[in-house]
Amino acid sequence: MSTPFSFELLAEDACGARRGRFHTSRGVIETPQFMPVGTSATVKAMTTGELKAMDAQIILGNVYHLYLRPGHERIAKFGGLHKFMNWDRPILTDSGGFQVFSLGELRKITEEGVTFRSHIDGSKHLLSPEKVIEIQEALGSDIMMQFDECPPYPAKRDYVAKSMEMSVRWAERCQKARRDDRRTTQALFGIVQGGMHQDLRQQSAQALAEMDLEGYALGGLSVGEPKELMKEVLSYAPALLPRHKPRYLMGVGKPEDLVMAVSEGIDMFDCVMPTRNARNGQLFTHTGPVNIKQARYRDDENRLDSECSCETCQNYSRAYLHHLFRQREILGLRLMTLHNLHFYLNLMSRMRTALELGQFQQFKEDFYHSYSNPSRANKNSGSPG
Amino acid sequence: MSTPFSFELLAEDACGARRGRFHTSRGVIETPQFMPVGTSATVKAMTTGELKAMDAQIILGNVYHLYLRPGHERIAKFGGLHKFMNWDRPILTDSGGFQVFSLGELRKITEEGVTFRSHIDGSKHLLSPEKVIEIQEALGSDIMMQFDECPPYPAKRDYVAKSMEMSVRWAERCQKARRDDRRTTQALFGIVQGGMHQDLRQQSAQALAEMDLEGYALGGLSVGEPKELMKEVLSYAPALLPRHKPRYLMGVGKPEDLVMAVSEGIDMFDCVMPTRNARNGQLFTHTGPVNIKQARYRDDENRLDSECSCETCQNYSRAYLHHLFRQREILGLRLMTLHNLHFYLNLMSRMRTALELGQFQQFKEDFYHSYSNPSRANKNSGSPG
Repeated sequence: MSTPFSFELLAEDACGARRGRFHTSRGVIETPQFMPVGTSATVKAMTTGELKAMDAQIILGNVYHLYLRPGHERIAKFGGLHKFMNWDRPILTDSGGFQVFSLGELRKITEEGVTFRSHIDGSKHLLSPEKVIEIQEALGSDIMMQFDECPPYPAKRDYVAKSMEMSVRWAERCQKARRDDRRTTQALFGIVQGGMHQDLRQQSAQALAEMDLEGYALGGLSVGEPKELMKEVLSYAPALLPRHKPRYLMGVGKPEDLVMAVSEGIDMFDCVMPTRNARNGQLFTHTGPVNIKQARYRDDENRLDSECSCETCQNYSRAYLHHLFRQREILGLRLMTLHNLHFYLNLMSRMRTALELGQFQQFKEDFYHSYSNPSRANKNSGSPG
Repeated sequence: MSTPFSFELLAEDACGARRGRFHTSRGVIETPQFMPVGTSATVKAMTTGELKAMDAQIILGNVYHLYLRPGHERIAKFGGLHKFMNWDRPILTDSGGFQVFSLGELRKITEEGVTFRSHIDGSKHLLSPEKVIEIQEALGSDIMMQFDECPPYPAKRDYVAKSMEMSVRWAERCQKARRDDRRTTQALFGIVQGGMHQDLRQQSAQALAEMDLEGYALGGLSVGEPKELMKEVLSYAPALLPRHKPRYLMGVGKPEDLVMAVSEGIDMFDCVMPTRNARNGQLFTHTGPVNIKQARYRDDENRLDSECSCETCQNYSRAYLHHLFRQREILGLRLMTLHNLHFYLNLMSRMRTALELGQFQQFKEDFYHSYSNPSRANKNSGSPG
C-alpha cells in the first residue's frame, strides 16, 4: 500500500546530525523538531493560536488521559481531536504505555495487555495493542504510537529482554489492527526498547525495522537512569534505526539534552519540561535556566532573556514575572509557559539552520558555552521594549 | 487650577440614562463603561493585548493589594503601574477602603485612618486619606478614589450617619493631600456613602459636590442588602450627583444590574463577577447565565453564545469548555474569562449605541426578554466556526 508519509533527508553532518522533513497528510514537519505536550487536549495554558504564532508544527496528545476523559468515542463524535481542540496541524498521540506503567500498584501486565484502575475514579480498564490503535484512530491523530512496555530503571536484564520481545509482538499486533482506510492518513511509529543494553536495543530495532513502519522512537530513556547512561545509549541507538525514517526520542529533555541528541541523529522530541517547569517558575534563557521565584529578581527591570523575541520578553520585566509568580497569577503561568515553549522551538529552529549551513558543530559549541555561563545573564539583558 | 478632565454629555434619555465621554490625560473613556478588575497588577488570566482587543478602555487596580505586594514604591521605581503591567490606557485605583473593612477583626478604624494587619504576613499598617493618596500617586493611576469607610449591611442609622460624615472629612483630607503637579494628570473621585438612607445619601452627595471633584462614585451598595433596597437607592441617588461629572457605581454587578443602573443614570462600573465567575464556570450569554460544569454540556457541540464574536465562541464548543473546566485546565480559565469580559464590554457598547440612537428603553426591554429566557439558549446556538 502506498503511503503519503515520507522522510526527506535534507542535510546530514559528519557526526550524524540530520536536517529533515517529515511529510504527513496534514502538512510538513521540519526536523529536528520539538513537540509541545498537550496531554488532555490542551497544551497547558496555551491557545492553539499562540502555538501557531511560535511556529509549533506538531503537538502531542495522550491516549491514557483522553481515553479516560473526555473519552475517545466522545472526541470521535466531534470529528476528532483536531476539531475538538481547534488545532489543524499534525498531532502525535502517545499510546498510553508510559502512563499506565507509571500507575504502579494500580496495573497488571500480561501478554494480552495492561489491566489498570483509573487514577480518577478507580474504574477498571484494559489497554491492549488493538485497543490503543482503536483509540488513536478514533482520536484521528496523524502519528500513532505503538503500545509498548516501558521498563523502569534499574531492571534486571532478563526482565528487560522479555519485556522488549513482548513490545515487539505488541508492535506487530498494532500494525495488524490498523484500519486499512486509515493507513494513508495515520502513521504508526514503533518504539525501540531494550533498556541500557546495546544488544537488546539492536534486536528491538531490527525487528521493528523489518515491519517497515512510518517512523521509530527510542523509549525507555529519561526514566531515572544516570545522564551518562542515556548518553551512552544515544551514542549507538539512533544508528540502529532506518536512515530514511524519522527518529523520535521520547520524553527528553533539557535544552542541553536536545542539542546532544540532535548531534547523535535524533529528529523529534517531546517533553513536559518547558510547560511544567514554567508553572514551577523555572525559565530557560540563552545563558541558562532562571528561577524566577528568587528574591534577586524582585527589582530586576530587565527582560527575561535579552535574545528572545517572544511576547513575554518583549513586554514584561523579570520583576513583573516574579510578582505574578509570587501571587500565583494565571497570567504568570501563561507568560512563562509561552516563553519556555518559544525557547524550545527557537532552539530547534536554530539547530535546523545550523545544519542547513553545515555549521552544527560550531552551533553546539556556542550553545554550550553560552548556556553554561549564567553570570552573563544580567549583564546582557535590556529592558523590555 | 485648570484640569484636562472633563465629562461630555452626548445624549440623555427621558429616564435619565446617559451617553457620555470622560476625557483623561491618557485618553477618552466612552460611557456607560465597564472596568475589568485588575487587583494585583493583572486582570486575572488576561494579557493586556487581549483586553485591548476586546476594547477595554480602562481597568482597575487595588491600593490594598499593590501596597502590600509588590509595594507602591517598587512600582514607582519601575515608572508606575502602567509600565509595570504593560497597559497604556487609563487605570482607576480603588482606595483600599473596601478591602481593609473586609478584614474584620484584623483592623481598627479611627478618625486618623485604619490600622490593620496584612492578610499575608500579619504585619501592621496604617492607611489614612493622606497615605492612600501617596500610594495612588506613586502608582500613577489616572483616576484615584478617596479613602472612605464602607459600612456593612445591616448597620444602625446612627453608625451609618457618623461613618458618612467621617468619609466626607476623609475626602477633604484626600483633596488637600494631592500633589499640585499631579492634579492635571490624576483625577480624584469622591465616594457617596449613607447606606440605605435617602437623607444621608443627600447630605453626603451635597458635601462632596461642593468640593468640585473630577467624578463621583456610589459606595456602600452590593454589600449584602436585598436587591430591592439597592434598586431603591439607585432610583434617587444618581440624580443627587453633579450632572456634568461621571457617576461610578462601585462593585456592581450582574448584567441585569448594569442595565438597570445605566437606566438610572450611572456611567461607570467595576465588578469581579465576569472574571471570578468565569473561574467558577459561570458564563454569561445573551439568553442568560450558563453553568458549564453541568453534565448537559458534556456532549454539546454548540458554541457558548451564538451571538458572541469573541475568540472563545468563534473557535470552541461548550463540550470542549466543559472538558477544560472539569480538568481544571488553565486554558479553560482563560477562554471563559475572555468570553465573560467580552460579554460585559459588549453589553456596555450595545447600551452606548442604543443611547445614541435614542432607543435605550427598547434595548432594555429586549435585553430582559432575551436574558431571562434560557430555554432559547440551545435552539439558537450554531457550531463554532
